[in-house]
Amino acid sequence: MTSPSATQHSYPYQNEPIWSKSEKVIARTAFDAALGRELHEVIQQAKKMASQIQQSSDLWDLEHYLTERRKEIDRKYDYRSSQLTHVFGKLLQESRLREEELRGLRKDKLESIRSYAKFLAEMDAA
Amino acid sequence: MTSPSATQHSYPYQNEPIWSKSEKVIARTAFDAALGRELHEVIQQAKKMASQIQQSSDLWDLEHYLTERRKEIDRKYDYRSSQLTHVFGKLLQESRLREEELRGLRKDKLESIRSYAKFLAEMDAA
Repeated sequence: MTSPSATQHSYPYQNEPIWSKSEKVIARTAFDAALGRELHEVIQQAKKMASQIQQSSDLWDLEHYLTERRKEIDRKYDYRSSQLTHVFGKLLQESRLREEELRGLRKDKLESIRSYAKFLAEMDAA
Repeated sequence: MTSPSATQHSYPYQNEPIWSKSEKVIARTAFDAALGRELHEVIQQAKKMASQIQQSSDLWDLEHYLTERRKEIDRKYDYRSSQLTHVFGKLLQESRLREEELRGLRKDKLESIRSYAKFLAEMDAA
């Protein structure tokens, strides 16, 4: 019989979902696609803001915009497996990810992701 | 006879040059002109960098460039009369200001400004 400590040793993070090899591929692809789209959006916006700069305040507005977006992206795109459910939930809720891109993940994971997205939507509406 | 403390009271900053009304007009005009030119240069460079962005690293390079230039400009353009000699000296040395723009300042101020510009040039060369 396995002692509790041995069980804990072999599976230290009981509350973290395990991601299979194939799920990791799906997750990485979806994650990179959403990040790529968001970066593309920031690039387009920065080009637009820069082209419209007329005075110094516009210049520092662009700097501020870039700093805020960089911090937000750094916070949001956290590829630790312990965080992925939240990351995908947030991306779903922001319409930065379509559910089809997560097809192939285990049903319980998809449900957690959807549930978190729903929670965020309700928070936003409140 | 005036006591030392009374003298100190009427002229508390013995080492600071006094700027006459007409000198203040010249200083403000020269200061604003140099600042305007430097901001114009940063705006042009930011527009150029933005137009050439292809990937996210270019985006954060632009942010970094803007942050550094903002800090540098904040440090450099200090319009306290106690700082103006140094400010103009630095602007002369960087060729951001022409000596003609300071015409009308008292001779001793112009000499201090030139002397500081020369000192900076020698520091740079060392």
